[in-house]
Amino acid sequence: MSQNAPLGIFDSGLGGLTVAREIAQRLPHESFVYVGDTRRCPYGPRDLSQVEQYVREICTFLQDKGVKLIVIACNTATAAGLELMQREFDIPIIGVIEPGARAAVRTTRNRKVGVIGTVGTIQSSVYHHAVKALDAGCQVMSVATPSFVDMVEEGLAFSDEQSSDVTHGLRVPPNFDEIATDYLGPLQDEEVDTVVLGCTHYPLLHDPIAEIMGDDVVLVSSAEETARDVSSTLQRRGHEALEDHIPTYQFFTTGDLDRFQMLGSKVFGRPLDSLELLDIDYLESLIDPHKE
Amino acid sequence: MSQNAPLGIFDSGLGGLTVAREIAQRLPHESFVYVGDTRRCPYGPRDLSQVEQYVREICTFLQDKGVKLIVIACNTATAAGLELMQREFDIPIIGVIEPGARAAVRTTRNRKVGVIGTVGTIQSSVYHHAVKALDAGCQVMSVATPSFVDMVEEGLAFSDEQSSDVTHGLRVPPNFDEIATDYLGPLQDEEVDTVVLGCTHYPLLHDPIAEIMGDDVVLVSSAEETARDVSSTLQRRGHEALEDHIPTYQFFTTGDLDRFQMLGSKVFGRPLDSLELLDIDYLESLIDPHKE
Repeated sequence: MSQNAPLGIFDSGLGGLTVAREIAQRLPHESFVYVGDTRRCPYGPRDLSQVEQYVREICTFLQDKGVKLIVIACNTATAAGLELMQREFDIPIIGVIEPGARAAVRTTRNRKVGVIGTVGTIQSSVYHHAVKALDAGCQVMSVATPSFVDMVEEGLAFSDEQSSDVTHGLRVPPNFDEIATDYLGPLQDEEVDTVVLGCTHYPLLHDPIAEIMGDDVVLVSSAEETARDVSSTLQRRGHEALEDHIPTYQFFTTGDLDRFQMLGSKVFGRPLDSLELLDIDYLESLIDPHKE
Repeated sequence: MSQNAPLGIFDSGLGGLTVAREIAQRLPHESFVYVGDTRRCPYGPRDLSQVEQYVREICTFLQDKGVKLIVIACNTATAAGLELMQREFDIPIIGVIEPGARAAVRTTRNRKVGVIGTVGTIQSSVYHHAVKALDAGCQVMSVATPSFVDMVEEGLAFSDEQSSDVTHGLRVPPNFDEIATDYLGPLQDEEVDTVVLGCTHYPLLHDPIAEIMGDDVVLVSSAEETARDVSSTLQRRGHEALEDHIPTYQFFTTGDLDRFQMLGSKVFGRPLDSLELLDIDYLESLIDPHKE
C-alpha cells in the first residue's frame, strides 16, 4: 500500500462533499476519489438492505481504485452498511455516525442531544446507540427531517454564487421556516442544547437551522470529527501521504455531469477538475450476484 | 461551575497516575483531585458489583470536591461502573476503555488486536465490544494478566531512582519473562500487531512487554487518547481552565501515605506535594445505605 494512495469518500450525492472539503483542509497532502451516487439519491427513504447493496458496490469500486481507506460520508449508508463492509473489506472503513455522536457528547452541557437525519438514519436508531455508548446518562431525541435533503439540492441549484463559506451559496426555499419549525419544535420542547446534523447534506442548512434553534443551541456535524479520525488513523498506521505529495481529487457521479459539476463545486468550494460519469450498470456488475 | 474547577481522576491505586501524568502534560492549566484507593486495590479480582459501589463512593467524594469532570482512570472500575455513574451523576464522566479501543482500532494494520487486563476487565468483554463497535471487522483476542498489577506495585517499591521516563523507575521482577511469555504466547500465536495495555498499571511495564512481543507489535495505552477526550470535552463545553490559572494537584489515598508518596511520585514523575489520607469509613458514609 503506497502512502500516497488516495482515500475513498462517498455519499448518495453532494452532501459528502462537506466531509471531503473538511478532509482536504485538514489533510492537505492526501488525494481522494469521491463517488456521489446522485442517480440513486436520496438513500434516506430506501430500504436499508437496498442501501447496503449500493454501499457494497461503491466500496468495491473504490477498492479497485486502490484507495487506502474509505470514508462512508453518508449517514444513511453508514447506518445501513458500515458494520458489514468493515467485515467484508480489508482496508479501514470509517463512517460518520460515531464521530458525530462523539462530537455531540463532548459538546452538550445539559446532556440533552437532538439528532436530525433522514428517515433511514433515524429509524435505525444508530445515533441513539452511539451517543448512549459514550454517555449512558445523555438523553437523545431523534427527529427525521427528510425534506431537508431536497431543500439543499434545490437550494444549491438556485444559488448563483460560489462562496468560500460552505453554507452561503445556498438559497433557502421560501417554505423552509414553516417546515423546519414543524420538524424542530419537539427538540426545542425537550430543551436540547446540542443538535447533531445527522446527514451530510445538512451542514449546508447550518445557518437557517441555527436561526430557528437559537443562540443557546450548538449544531454539530460529523465532518470535523470524521476528518480527525481519518487523520489519526493514517498517522497511527504510518499511512499518511508524504509532505511533498501534490494531492489529486477525482470525482465520479452516477447522475448528470453538468449538474454535479455546478452544484458540487459550490459545496466543495472550488471546481471539480476531474469529474467522470460512473455507470450504474458497471457498478452493479462489480458484485457477483451469485454471492448474494 | 468555575472554569478553573479541578478535574477528578481516580484509580484503584497508582496506575491511574499514568493517566494523570498525561493529562497534566497535555492540559497544563488544569487542576485535579486524584484518589488512589490503594487500601482496596486491586479491584481486578473483585466482584464487579462491589467495584461499582467503590466507584460510586469515590465519584461522590470527587463531586463534593467540586470537580467539573471525572476520569475513571481504571479499566476495571470503568467496566464495572462507567455506565451507571454516567446515569447517576450530572458532570461528564470519562472512562479509559473506549479511548483505548479507539487507539487500537486506529493503530492496527492487520486488524488483529490483543487486549491484556485484569480478570474483571477481561471477563466483562468491554474491550471486545468497544473495538467491534468501531471496526466490526477487527479481531479481538483478550487475555487476563492479573500478576502484572502486583509486579508493577512491587517493582516500583524496589526501584530506587525517580526517572523522567514513566517506565524507567520500575525494577522488573526476575520471574517476569516466564510469566509474561506464558500470558502473551496466545497473542503471538494469533499474530496480533497491536496490544492494548488494558490496565492503567501496565504502561509501567511497557518496555519489558514490548521486548517479549517484538518490534512489529505496537502497544497502546488509554492514557493519551483519554487525555485528548478530556481536552476536547472541556474545549467544546467552554470549561477549559483559564490560561493564567496555576494548577494545583491534590492527591488522596485510602492506604499508606508514605508508600503512596514514594511510589506515586515515581509514576507521576514529580513529588506529590499535597497528599492526604482518605478514610474508608468516611468514603462509605457518603453513600446512604437506604438508597441501595
